[in-house]
Amino acid sequence: MATAKKKIIIDTDPGIDDAMAIFVALQSPEVEVIGLTTIYGNVYTTLATRNALHLLEVAGRTDIPVAEGSHVTITKGTKLRIADFVHGADGLGNQNFPPPKGKPIEQSAATFLIEQANLYPGEVTVVALGPLTNIALALEQDPTFSKKIGQIVLLGGAFSVNGNVNPAAEANIFGDPDAADIVFTSGADVLAIGINVTHQVVLTDADRDKLVQSNGRFAQYLSRILEVYFAYHREAYFTRVYLHDPTTIIAALNPSLLTFTEGVVRVQTTGITRGLTILYNGQKRFGEHTEWSDKPKVKVAVTVDAPSVVKLVLDRLMES
Amino acid sequence: MATAKKKIIIDTDPGIDDAMAIFVALQSPEVEVIGLTTIYGNVYTTLATRNALHLLEVAGRTDIPVAEGSHVTITKGTKLRIADFVHGADGLGNQNFPPPKGKPIEQSAATFLIEQANLYPGEVTVVALGPLTNIALALEQDPTFSKKIGQIVLLGGAFSVNGNVNPAAEANIFGDPDAADIVFTSGADVLAIGINVTHQVVLTDADRDKLVQSNGRFAQYLSRILEVYFAYHREAYFTRVYLHDPTTIIAALNPSLLTFTEGVVRVQTTGITRGLTILYNGQKRFGEHTEWSDKPKVKVAVTVDAPSVVKLVLDRLMES
Repeated sequence: MATAKKKIIIDTDPGIDDAMAIFVALQSPEVEVIGLTTIYGNVYTTLATRNALHLLEVAGRTDIPVAEGSHVTITKGTKLRIADFVHGADGLGNQNFPPPKGKPIEQSAATFLIEQANLYPGEVTVVALGPLTNIALALEQDPTFSKKIGQIVLLGGAFSVNGNVNPAAEANIFGDPDAADIVFTSGADVLAIGINVTHQVVLTDADRDKLVQSNGRFAQYLSRILEVYFAYHREAYFTRVYLHDPTTIIAALNPSLLTFTEGVVRVQTTGITRGLTILYNGQKRFGEHTEWSDKPKVKVAVTVDAPSVVKLVLDRLMES
Repeated sequence: MATAKKKIIIDTDPGIDDAMAIFVALQSPEVEVIGLTTIYGNVYTTLATRNALHLLEVAGRTDIPVAEGSHVTITKGTKLRIADFVHGADGLGNQNFPPPKGKPIEQSAATFLIEQANLYPGEVTVVALGPLTNIALALEQDPTFSKKIGQIVLLGGAFSVNGNVNPAAEANIFGDPDAADIVFTSGADVLAIGINVTHQVVLTDADRDKLVQSNGRFAQYLSRILEVYFAYHREAYFTRVYLHDPTTIIAALNPSLLTFTEGVVRVQTTGITRGLTILYNGQKRFGEHTEWSDKPKVKVAVTVDAPSVVKLVLDRLMES
C-alpha cells in the first residue's frame, strides 16, 4: 500500500514562479494536489483563473478542480496592485498561449476551501502563494475553518528585512493587509515563508540552462516563460532571481529544509508601512498590553537550505 | 595649545541612564558640554528640567545652562507615555534628592539649539536621548538649522528588531513619531543609535559592584540610583541591564567604537506599529515611487564594540 499523500490546495495568482511551484507540486509524490484556488496579485483574478486552467492542461491534469477566488480585497474598495511588470501582461512571460478549454468549478475559492476542510478535517494543507483574501474569507464564513484546515503554508511577509513593494512591505501581504492580519491571528496552524528566506533561494543562469537543456516537458515550458522574470530581476535586484513560490511549495513538501521560529505576527494595515509584518519574538516581557498580547502564535521561517531547495525544484521540473 | 573640544548639547529626559550619560560627557576631555535641553520621556518635562539642574549641581557644573523643552508632542494632543516604571517616580531611582537651587534659562530648548547652531555653525553636536520634539521644533522654527547644526546623534529606533514599548516601536521614537520623521528626513547629519545596538551593551552585576566600590563621586551617586533600573530590567529582560544613553554619548565621543550603515529612515506615525523605524537599505531598486524615495540618507549604527564601550563608561565614571 502507498503511504497516504498530503492533500494540498494551492491558492495562486499565476505568475511565472507560481507556474514553477504548481509543476513542482504536481511532480511530487509526497503530495496530492486536490485543487487550485485563484486570486489577484501577479495578475487579476480572472486571468489567474485562466492561467491556472491553462497550467493544468499543460500538465495533463484537468482532473484537478480550479475554484475562482475573490476579485477584491476583503475590505473592498482598495485599489489592487497587480505585478504584471514582473510576470508579463499575461502573467506567463508574454507567450500568448491559447485560452484554456476548461472552466472553473461553480464554487468560490473560499467555499471550496471550507468544503475540503470539512471533507478531510485536519488533513488539508493550503499553500497560499498570493494575497490572503480567500483564506480570510474562509475564516470569516466558517469560524471552525481555522481548526479544520490542517496547515496554512503561506508565502508572505518581510521579517526584519526590507519589503519588495517598498522598504516596508512584501507584495502578498501588501496586496491585502487586512486579510493577512486575519489569517495570522486566526489560531490556525500557520507557517509563513517571508522574503527574508526566499531571497536566499536564487536561480542562476546555469540553473536556467539546465532547464533549457532538459527534455522534461515542464522544464521546456518554463524555459519559454522565464525570460520576463529574469529581465525584471536583472533590473530590480542586480541579477538575483528569486524562487519565492517554489520555496513555499518545498516548505509544504519537506519542511526539514527550513528552520522556523514561533511568535505572534501582526500586520500594519494603514500608513506608509501598510502591509508590514512584525513578529514578536518574546525576548522582552512587556508590562503593558500590546496589540500582540493574547494572540495565537504562528511559525515563521528563519533559515533555508537553499542549495537543497534549488536542487529539489530543478530535479522535479526536469523529470518527464 | 589644547585640541579644540567638540561642543555638545545633550537633549535629555533624566532618567537613570541619562544621568550616567551626562556624567560620562562631563568627565570626557574630548567634548565640551555647552548646554542641556530637556524633554519628556522617562519623566515629564518639568521634572526633566529639575533633574538636569540637580545633576549639574551634583557635578559642580552649574556654569552649564539648562533650557527647558517642549511639554507636548509636536502635533500636540498626543497622550504622553512616561517611563517612570523604569526610572522611578522621580526619574532618579526614588532617592528623594533635594530640589535644585538653579533655574533653567529663559530660552526654550528649540530656541537655544538654534542660537548655539548659529553661534558655532557646523560645530555643535546635539546628543538626543529622549523623544525628538525639541529638535523637530528647531528644524521647523529655522529651516537652516539642518545645515547649521553639526551632527545629531540620537538614541532612537529599533532597526530590524523588536521595539521596547511594544514589538514594533522603541520608546524615544514612540514618544513623538511625527517629530522623529521630521528629524530623519530633515537633511541634517543624523546618526541614529537604535536598541538593536544598545541591547548589546550590558551592565553586569560585577560592573555595578565596581561602581559601588569606587571612590569616584559619580560612581558613588550612580550606585544609589541604579537599583530601580536593575529591578526593571530583571523583570522585563531577564536581568540584562542596557546602557542606552551612555552608548549614545560614546557614539558622539568616539564613533570608531561602532559601525554604521547609510540609508533613508522613515517613521510610521499611525496604527499598531506607530513609532516603528524602517531603514531602506538600497538593496532593491524600486520601480515605483515609495515614501522613501528622494529623501536624504542618515547613518544608522549596526555594530558596537560593547566591551570597549562598557569599559570607557566605567572608567570615566570612576575617575574622581
